[in-house]
Amino acid sequence: MAVSSRDLPPLYRQWAEHYRQAMVAGTLPVGLRMPSVRELMQRHSVSLSTALQVLRTLEAEGYLEARPRVGYFVRAPGAAGLGETTDPDPSIPVPQLNGTEFVGINERISWLLEQGRLADVRIDLGSAMPAPELFDGPALNRHGVALLREFPDILVQGHSRPGTHPLFQAAMARRALESGVQVAPQDVMSTLGNSEAVNLALSAVAESGDVIAVESPTFYGLLQAVEAQNLRALEIPSSSRTGISLEALELAVQQEPRLKAVVVVPHLQMPNGALMPDEHKARLVDFCVRHQLALIEDDIYRELVERNEPQRPLKAWDRHGQVIYCVSFNKTLAPGLRQGWMNGGRWHTRIHMLKFAKTRNMQVWAQLLAARAVESAAYDRHLRRMRQVLRQQRERSVQAVARYFPVGTRLSVPAGGLSLWIELPPGVSSSQLFEQALALGIRVAPGPMFSNSGRYERFLRLSCGLPFTPDVEAAYATLGGLVQSLLEADPLQRSAA
Amino acid sequence: MAVSSRDLPPLYRQWAEHYRQAMVAGTLPVGLRMPSVRELMQRHSVSLSTALQVLRTLEAEGYLEARPRVGYFVRAPGAAGLGETTDPDPSIPVPQLNGTEFVGINERISWLLEQGRLADVRIDLGSAMPAPELFDGPALNRHGVALLREFPDILVQGHSRPGTHPLFQAAMARRALESGVQVAPQDVMSTLGNSEAVNLALSAVAESGDVIAVESPTFYGLLQAVEAQNLRALEIPSSSRTGISLEALELAVQQEPRLKAVVVVPHLQMPNGALMPDEHKARLVDFCVRHQLALIEDDIYRELVERNEPQRPLKAWDRHGQVIYCVSFNKTLAPGLRQGWMNGGRWHTRIHMLKFAKTRNMQVWAQLLAARAVESAAYDRHLRRMRQVLRQQRERSVQAVARYFPVGTRLSVPAGGLSLWIELPPGVSSSQLFEQALALGIRVAPGPMFSNSGRYERFLRLSCGLPFTPDVEAAYATLGGLVQSLLEADPLQRSAA
Repeated sequence: MAVSSRDLPPLYRQWAEHYRQAMVAGTLPVGLRMPSVRELMQRHSVSLSTALQVLRTLEAEGYLEARPRVGYFVRAPGAAGLGETTDPDPSIPVPQLNGTEFVGINERISWLLEQGRLADVRIDLGSAMPAPELFDGPALNRHGVALLREFPDILVQGHSRPGTHPLFQAAMARRALESGVQVAPQDVMSTLGNSEAVNLALSAVAESGDVIAVESPTFYGLLQAVEAQNLRALEIPSSSRTGISLEALELAVQQEPRLKAVVVVPHLQMPNGALMPDEHKARLVDFCVRHQLALIEDDIYRELVERNEPQRPLKAWDRHGQVIYCVSFNKTLAPGLRQGWMNGGRWHTRIHMLKFAKTRNMQVWAQLLAARAVESAAYDRHLRRMRQVLRQQRERSVQAVARYFPVGTRLSVPAGGLSLWIELPPGVSSSQLFEQALALGIRVAPGPMFSNSGRYERFLRLSCGLPFTPDVEAAYATLGGLVQSLLEADPLQRSAA
Repeated sequence: MAVSSRDLPPLYRQWAEHYRQAMVAGTLPVGLRMPSVRELMQRHSVSLSTALQVLRTLEAEGYLEARPRVGYFVRAPGAAGLGETTDPDPSIPVPQLNGTEFVGINERISWLLEQGRLADVRIDLGSAMPAPELFDGPALNRHGVALLREFPDILVQGHSRPGTHPLFQAAMARRALESGVQVAPQDVMSTLGNSEAVNLALSAVAESGDVIAVESPTFYGLLQAVEAQNLRALEIPSSSRTGISLEALELAVQQEPRLKAVVVVPHLQMPNGALMPDEHKARLVDFCVRHQLALIEDDIYRELVERNEPQRPLKAWDRHGQVIYCVSFNKTLAPGLRQGWMNGGRWHTRIHMLKFAKTRNMQVWAQLLAARAVESAAYDRHLRRMRQVLRQQRERSVQAVARYFPVGTRLSVPAGGLSLWIELPPGVSSSQLFEQALALGIRVAPGPMFSNSGRYERFLRLSCGLPFTPDVEAAYATLGGLVQSLLEADPLQRSAA
């Protein structure tokens, strides 16, 4: 850092910013011990009071944690100024079986999505779609061109059943094996992304009027899928720390005889970002075996987890074919390819039949492209880079929330992925925020999208998939201001003032 | 034709074969007047009796039709030796509403397909898939490569709703307009082939337990789709000349209050090859409007029709949004692309919502590729060539049936397309034929696949999608022999002998 004194912030601020950037960039990882006051003084030729101010500023902003008599350590950002989000009360499954709450999610969500689509959106923080820059588009296109050259008939060759290419099956089975999952190649079935996979799983295990346990909050696409099949979603509280509540699930299975399946995203749950601990995974699989529930695992985000220890899918614990495993490359390899796959466990034959009845075969080109890309050495390099860029974007986003949103805002920083799940101060409505922000060209995903039950009015999902440009930072500032004014307009707040 | 007398068939046979080949090749099209006896004598320096024998042989084989005092005319082959197929009795809708017949089509068809898949198939006459040679694979691959070069982000760009690309919408709307269909570009929705389109249409208009009128016989994939959605198929007799019986439909609507939709393939019905006359189309659309039935039009084969007059989809008669129009390029452009589209008429918004809930977006690459290919001048040239090749293959197949199958075999030659629907002599089971042929490496599609009701045991669908090689001709000879032996083994035949 080249520092001159003219027109610049005070010296301690400049050095604090220097270290802040290094932490955001990952140069100084979480857990690292910072240089001591004495080291800072020597290294940067600064006074004792400047060195102390650097460390205290970073501590106040949540970047450092002071351990008495040891020193300062780099901490996960956002955990100081921002409290952790409140989890839904696990003792009470959302009481939703009296009928009316089951309908209308599609209309409501479609209306929100349509509003978002029709508006003149400048900054889209509302979708969990990673920016194109996060992927290796040129490498994918090279694979695509090579396949078209090698296989002159690839677009004109009809398929006989089953429609999943053996090379794709082999590559996926090998990749799954690396994560601890045993799937025979012939039991890998190609799907149109993971949406089709989860839909097929639901069709295979439940019929009209049956009940499906979903996490609460959950991805609105799942609520749409459940409703589109005339099934009923039973929302089981999910903690942003450990995922779905097994206690609430236990209660639900006693009360709901038509419960047929549980759908979970065990890694980087959407939207709360939870990572299910191994012990929970084992218990959940065991629970579903005991109660004869299908366990539908949507494993779309696992490869975006930033942890040194490997994450094993629920499927790795499955000894009875009870887990229907669904995965896609929409978030990790190529959002535009629409390639996914699934293994249906004990329902695989039925799922296969349903797939054939509903959408028949898949493109061979897309399957071979995904297989080649995933099997190349470049794929793991790409994932490492993608995780790093996402981490930087996420940390900048967390800092922006800490800086611009009013006191009382809470968020739990997830261990990877594309989104932040933010709890606004009491009295603030994210639906109102959605509308006000949209009028200013900023799209967000309001909490009520993630539930059928009207919960999460105070919650908000923001995407970290975009590069953190000054425009994005400005959008956070605007959102923070809107939240502040909604807070001030709240009658309870006003009466307290 | 160079003719020498040594070791050759008699002269009249040689000239008859000469003209037969010209007719199969299309050099002498149906309806053309043949040279007179006098002209043949002069042209080929043959005797009166040879010239007469040439014409009479071709007449006997069904290639020519004698019109008294006018001359001989080229006729559609197969109509002489082979009678027209018997249509299902239109006065009686198949009585299928007592429950049990509604289930199990998926299991039965899956079992047949699985048998076919596991067998060592040398000659596949069982699937209606055109051979790769019928398409312009290299041109498609060039389009594909060009798109990957022009759009570096095409595989990594996420989509916001609605997921159908505007360029695809524009191209499809223009193409539809040429066939008399008015669809606004924004009302074109991309689908995974036409299977997904028909499935979405069914989901949008009916719910569990509702009844769907289907043609009888019908494509087994439709029966699978209906069953997969817990709907009930009501089979309405369909004539191989005019398509679905409006009289039977009238009866059905009176008897079945849960009837919600009619699904038809108006052009080259699968499997009977019917072309619905315009007057029927107008009546059918009007009927569905009056009775508030959704009319689901699967228009997958229209561009394979060989007629000089243009064929207009049912949608062209639709003034009330009653027709859900479904189409794909699986049979005409690129079986491996899996690209289709639909317009949902008055249900379009709901269908759009369901599509998003079930499989979300489609590949942009495939959409742009289809758009470019369809808009290029080469597409219509390709279709003309494809129709001509299919006609030759179909005529060779018809001749092979006439030559190798026993007396009593019937078929109606369709006005285009990929298949023949063959009626075997009384007493012959196509299920038995299926098993016996499969043991010899030949796959056929037995009649019972095309119905839930156990009808069509005497029928057989054979594909004309393959080049008519000597191996294919040998397969027809083998099939004919098997039919003959099944006929001879029939107890009724034996007691008659």
